[in-house]
Amino acid sequence: MSHRFNEKTIHRDEIFKGRVISLHVDEVELPNGKTSKRELVRHPGAVAVIPILANGNILMVEQFRKPLERAIVEIPAGKLEPDEEPELTAKRELEEETGYQCDNLEHLISFYTSPGFADEIIHLYVATGLSKAENPLTADEDEFVNLLEVSLQEAEEMIVSKQIYDAKTAYAILYLKLKEHMK
Amino acid sequence: MSHRFNEKTIHRDEIFKGRVISLHVDEVELPNGKTSKRELVRHPGAVAVIPILANGNILMVEQFRKPLERAIVEIPAGKLEPDEEPELTAKRELEEETGYQCDNLEHLISFYTSPGFADEIIHLYVATGLSKAENPLTADEDEFVNLLEVSLQEAEEMIVSKQIYDAKTAYAILYLKLKEHMK
Repeated sequence: MSHRFNEKTIHRDEIFKGRVISLHVDEVELPNGKTSKRELVRHPGAVAVIPILANGNILMVEQFRKPLERAIVEIPAGKLEPDEEPELTAKRELEEETGYQCDNLEHLISFYTSPGFADEIIHLYVATGLSKAENPLTADEDEFVNLLEVSLQEAEEMIVSKQIYDAKTAYAILYLKLKEHMK
Repeated sequence: MSHRFNEKTIHRDEIFKGRVISLHVDEVELPNGKTSKRELVRHPGAVAVIPILANGNILMVEQFRKPLERAIVEIPAGKLEPDEEPELTAKRELEEETGYQCDNLEHLISFYTSPGFADEIIHLYVATGLSKAENPLTADEDEFVNLLEVSLQEAEEMIVSKQIYDAKTAYAILYLKLKEHMK
């Protein structure tokens, strides 16, 4: 990978430090010697889980998303806590949001969601061997979710109807479709 | 879709208004009557294009991404200009970043990248019937990209080696893999 693209930070303005994200603006030196500004969001990173039941259906959660001012349907997901291993976060979020535990958790892929302005990374897992937890962990006190069990076909219809509308869940559905075709 | 999850804004603090993104913090009333804070990034939205050559290879661009402090390889993409139709943005960004024009542009899917904290939406297109533009549009003056032509197999290896590391490009590769399997 070449280094000739590098943008060196000349000056940084710290704008905001919140509970979830922080924002700073860097003045950078471009490869041609000119300068520009970059608006940069820091995020702790997140995990998402594709929970596949024995019948092939997927567990999803309906959740209000304030940035969109609407509820959408997503695979279970949540932010990484400081120093928490992503695999533990995945198991915790799965149980908190669905009430299920899993025997098998396989790392599928990790990707940055918005590399143009944010450093948020999502670690995506596939969970199988699911069973209802006897005394499941409860969700964060400001989190309200509605559990759904959907087939792959229903999930695809939910993309068309814009109930499913986010990158990680769209990726999950495409993954399941490919898995179906490779059988 | 149920409305019982809605989070009503009680108070809004405008924190930052930049060239690309803006940030505000909302105090919201939760479904249980309690209050919480939401940190919200506004983004104009973006397009991304999967440019498929007649030989089946894909055009990609290597680009330094300041939030990650490294260069990654992505499908061509760019922000929506105010009131610009996404399809026009897609054709413009394709030509600016790769020097190619396309005969066919098909909308594949649109998704929110980070619905937990941002409203960024990406409209994803497939471009075929590609040919080199005689006098291609030039890129933004603060944008430096390196054009690559890769096969599906090379693209999959670039995911493993973390040269490809973002959601839209990972989705694009999975889409091409599914297309290959459905042949």
